[in-house]
Amino acid sequence: MSWHESSIMNRKGLAGGKPGRRHTITIEDQKNYHYVYGPYAEPIIEVDPGDLVTVETHDAFEGQIQKESDKPSEKLNFPYLNPQTGPIRIRGAEKGDALAVRIISIKPRGPQPVGTTCLIPHFGALVPTAATAMLSPQLPEKVKKVEVDEQGVYWSDKITLPYEPFIGTIGTAPEIEAISSLQPDYYGGNMDLPDVAPGNVIYLPVNRAGGLLYLGDCHAIQGDGEVCGVALEIPATVELQVDLVKAHGNAWPQLETEDTFGFIASARPMEDAARIGYVELINWVVEQTGQTPEEAYLLLTMCGKVRLGNMVDPKYTMGVSIEKKFVR
Amino acid sequence: MSWHESSIMNRKGLAGGKPGRRHTITIEDQKNYHYVYGPYAEPIIEVDPGDLVTVETHDAFEGQIQKESDKPSEKLNFPYLNPQTGPIRIRGAEKGDALAVRIISIKPRGPQPVGTTCLIPHFGALVPTAATAMLSPQLPEKVKKVEVDEQGVYWSDKITLPYEPFIGTIGTAPEIEAISSLQPDYYGGNMDLPDVAPGNVIYLPVNRAGGLLYLGDCHAIQGDGEVCGVALEIPATVELQVDLVKAHGNAWPQLETEDTFGFIASARPMEDAARIGYVELINWVVEQTGQTPEEAYLLLTMCGKVRLGNMVDPKYTMGVSIEKKFVR
Amino acid sequence: MSWHESSIMNRKGLAGGKPGRRHTITIEDQKNYHYVYGPYAEPIIEVDPGDLVTVETHDAFEGQIQKESDKPSEKLNFPYLNPQTGPIRIRGAEKGDALAVRIISIKPRGPQPVGTTCLIPHFGALVPTAATAMLSPQLPEKVKKVEVDEQGVYWSDKITLPYEPFIGTIGTAPEIEAISSLQPDYYGGNMDLPDVAPGNVIYLPVNRAGGLLYLGDCHAIQGDGEVCGVALEIPATVELQVDLVKAHGNAWPQLETEDTFGFIASARPMEDAARIGYVELINWVVEQTGQTPEEAYLLLTMCGKVRLGNMVDPKYTMGVSIEKKFVR
Amino acid sequence: MSWHESSIMNRKGLAGGKPGRRHTITIEDQKNYHYVYGPYAEPIIEVDPGDLVTVETHDAFEGQIQKESDKPSEKLNFPYLNPQTGPIRIRGAEKGDALAVRIISIKPRGPQPVGTTCLIPHFGALVPTAATAMLSPQLPEKVKKVEVDEQGVYWSDKITLPYEPFIGTIGTAPEIEAISSLQPDYYGGNMDLPDVAPGNVIYLPVNRAGGLLYLGDCHAIQGDGEVCGVALEIPATVELQVDLVKAHGNAWPQLETEDTFGFIASARPMEDAARIGYVELINWVVEQTGQTPEEAYLLLTMCGKVRLGNMVDPKYTMGVSIEKKFVR
Repeated sequence: MSWHESSIMNRKGLAGGKPGRRHTITIEDQKNYHYVYGPYAEPIIEVDPGDLVTVETHDAFEGQIQKESDKPSEKLNFPYLNPQTGPIRIRGAEKGDALAVRIISIKPRGPQPVGTTCLIPHFGALVPTAATAMLSPQLPEKVKKVEVDEQGVYWSDKITLPYEPFIGTIGTAPEIEAISSLQPDYYGGNMDLPDVAPGNVIYLPVNRAGGLLYLGDCHAIQGDGEVCGVALEIPATVELQVDLVKAHGNAWPQLETEDTFGFIASARPMEDAARIGYVELINWVVEQTGQTPEEAYLLLTMCGKVRLGNMVDPKYTMGVSIEKKFVR
Repeated sequence: MSWHESSIMNRKGLAGGKPGRRHTITIEDQKNYHYVYGPYAEPIIEVDPGDLVTVETHDAFEGQIQKESDKPSEKLNFPYLNPQTGPIRIRGAEKGDALAVRIISIKPRGPQPVGTTCLIPHFGALVPTAATAMLSPQLPEKVKKVEVDEQGVYWSDKITLPYEPFIGTIGTAPEIEAISSLQPDYYGGNMDLPDVAPGNVIYLPVNRAGGLLYLGDCHAIQGDGEVCGVALEIPATVELQVDLVKAHGNAWPQLETEDTFGFIASARPMEDAARIGYVELINWVVEQTGQTPEEAYLLLTMCGKVRLGNMVDPKYTMGVSIEKKFVR
Repeated sequence: MSWHESSIMNRKGLAGGKPGRRHTITIEDQKNYHYVYGPYAEPIIEVDPGDLVTVETHDAFEGQIQKESDKPSEKLNFPYLNPQTGPIRIRGAEKGDALAVRIISIKPRGPQPVGTTCLIPHFGALVPTAATAMLSPQLPEKVKKVEVDEQGVYWSDKITLPYEPFIGTIGTAPEIEAISSLQPDYYGGNMDLPDVAPGNVIYLPVNRAGGLLYLGDCHAIQGDGEVCGVALEIPATVELQVDLVKAHGNAWPQLETEDTFGFIASARPMEDAARIGYVELINWVVEQTGQTPEEAYLLLTMCGKVRLGNMVDPKYTMGVSIEKKFVR
Repeated sequence: MSWHESSIMNRKGLAGGKPGRRHTITIEDQKNYHYVYGPYAEPIIEVDPGDLVTVETHDAFEGQIQKESDKPSEKLNFPYLNPQTGPIRIRGAEKGDALAVRIISIKPRGPQPVGTTCLIPHFGALVPTAATAMLSPQLPEKVKKVEVDEQGVYWSDKITLPYEPFIGTIGTAPEIEAISSLQPDYYGGNMDLPDVAPGNVIYLPVNRAGGLLYLGDCHAIQGDGEVCGVALEIPATVELQVDLVKAHGNAWPQLETEDTFGFIASARPMEDAARIGYVELINWVVEQTGQTPEEAYLLLTMCGKVRLGNMVDPKYTMGVSIEKKFVR
């Protein structure tokens, strides 16, 4: 028996874990990709709580970086970056609900070498950027193409990295804003947190009727912080189950794994992301257990875990979590 | 002879300072206010370079805080805050141009006490907020209504503050994003910089055909940083002249006064706003004078001026400037 | 055979892992504790590379918080906090060397309940502090005493936390500065990183002849970030082996575990700690493997790990690491 | 009648503005310069409240950068930078008092060109530094020597900048710490705030008996932020009057000018410096006027002024002030 039986999704979701219809969105179905998370685009499909959705995602470069001699600065056309599939409308979703999204699988898709990473001028945590502007020169551009399958990431003759796929960018539409798919925030977006991975469930705040789920930007593997700004980007086939938790009331994305509950927060400076994540988690522990905020604050000081997602996007992302066995 | 004769606007603008037609946008004309800066709204009017526009702006609360016993937390309905007039379409404006906006006058409008300021829970630089989240309690809410005319701000029996009006929020539409009017960024928006005042000219980057100018949120006076998050908010009548500088190429708002050239940058943490402002200004001095970047870097180290706009919005704003007499 | 056989300490240390003499520093031996890391105090002992040292450390409150009704604000006397044992002089240590410190064991010491945690006004990541100053009120003070042994931390009737001890504060003297033991920096100090734990080896930069090792502030367990500012503080008996790596040249503390190499960096804002850690680690991977900096930057983007130590001290601390098997 | 008659110094200082004995500290008198602010050095002289002191200060490079072909990276020997004169012991000063220092005059001293500025690798706000570490390359080093007299700063054939001298680094000893003279903090130090200028009075917290005043690092002119990290550095002759305000109780340096009261705060990130300055000033306005903190918070939101001192030191410095006429 899987831990999903006792997940928030199965306990509180409208479908209670029962799989509904199956939908597929191919690259051809989507046709027009989105570069903002917002309420101004037409839904590509509408689904019911419990439905299964298989989505073909582009890589973050929409396939434009094809060989190691390509120059990112020539191939990429800001702000038309990080193409998103969707939006997927969920029937019955209303502001204040949460969209529960269980990630079933993520598979690389397309001809080898299917993985791409690169150094892009003015992008990354260890060079001057548009946000942390400086006068000093940039590093040279560089593209690396990498073979990837479900057994590994074939980095070099000497090094094979594990295949640890996750969804880099996923979220709902803000209520009235339309925000670049390069940015993460309270609605999800470009969080780049490696824990948004197969097996886990993310609960996304619904800000607007229908929820309007977007996703894209799958990564075959990524270190904490995604330090150069580009993980191992892959086109992927993603399988999801979507459900609806009415009036769940989370202000930020919540993440559930077999062993942990957590929240994903995004802000600058980085300490503000950690603060938001901890405050959300403490309030949630208070609500679940009846402890006082002061008691939960002390408890989390002992056993809270923090994982750095990205330190390169317009806001930095951190996942803050607690083991389920300590929430009692 | 006014300094405007030799301003960038008059020297490089299509209308060269010659006033065109006069337009008026009243509260009734506008009817539906905007709470995002974006390309998805219909223009309210279209004007030619050189045209004069008189705009009636709401205060930042859309007039909902009417007496000192009102509770902001009950009257305000996030995200429907900071209502903006516009967008005003400028004929011929294309991506890469700059919209030159000369602020001719700002007058308070409506029955006394016309000014409003307040303490709003989870808002301001000296309390925990949604961005700098904490567990500690908030200060009590508090509203203060203040009489204002063009001679002064009648703060208390003991204190009359000067009337130093400016436009708190002004900018163009981003290319594909629609961003809350509470936020400032590269396109302008909620900068809250007191130098965006009568007599001065702001050059706003055009990111999209027509430019799509929005404005609102006038302040009768404001200290550096707008520290509690709310300046002395007034409904106002604003008179502007709009012109177009083709291919001006500024990535951020540029501000010209009688004596200074500067750029207005917004970022978190605050040092990144100062960095952006200085890099933009150094590059511009290099371009104007033929100095090397290193020479201009040394020069600005001697005579650069920094003014803090807001330290309360989603990004902090700083104006960075140099006296015109040192640009040679 | 232990992994220590192939550690940097055993391969490059003067003693090569061979244990030297055994020294003990009891509370009575130390008598006068130190509240700064600096070169102005007399060494308590002098040891040779390879020597074993057993140190009795005070808890961070020097035992002043004895029961749950104690008020930290009355018991604690800033800046006389976080008492440090030492300095221990290492024969032959010169500027540019690294002190290798293998942590053999950490045992709680004294009558139960031996563990203390608390909420201190103006201290912690989720309340206004001296550094992030605000006008809003503080949370109430609160002390919690907890029984701890080597089998567990007996938090409540419902929750037993694991005993995961580590040294909160350890480092060498700066060259000419004397810095509060509440602060971490390039010489170590109050890093509060849970990986500074039994089994692991920390390499501390020598800034001054003799190295001048200080330590204290052991924790029975701590979450990432030490979010309220106070972990589970215990008086402890710590067993160390000290060695000397000549001309190791690390600018920041380096940490070696069975499976990883890493660096520990401290800065504000938090992203600057991550930046320093990644730059140190990338430069070290370059040096070990002969890769270019660009190649190592890409590699770390795939597999770098970041752990948050403290987010409450005058500088925030992060450990940045890579698995040994990827350094080739 | 000068405004000093009604200054805090004259109203509350022990000497009440009456000049005492005159002391002189020449370069030869000082002989051994200090590179930390701390309690571990012997006082160079002891003075009484009211005494006048004339100090010859070195420039920040101790005169080592003599010509434009010098390479800072070869001439400078970290951490032996920013040499400080002192400490000057003030009779009767006790922890909790404030040292009032009236700056009478600052004159350039030595052969022309007496002014030095430069670009130093890994130093400045617009290049990667030890604190904001990056992998990208540095700008080239560059030295500029400039003639300076009390009439002007002769920057180039085209540009003469005004002579606007101030003391870059001044402060008292911390209680037990000894902190690099490159850093500013609660005791003063390397604040680089141009308002610490002739005519003005700075009130420095006394942390330790005798106060132990240090100073150095005079600048002939400096822009807000000291953006490249080096102002126009000059050896200078500084004339001061020192007084003692018993139990003044300021936690941070306070600055009084003819028209303003303010506090000088230093922190990272920059917003924390502004927060500290505003909280100190609001609390002080509350104390002076009997307003509630909420009323003073609103008032400062209207008329607070913020000036950026440095954005290049280990902590950034901001002066936050209010016009005297609004403190009533």
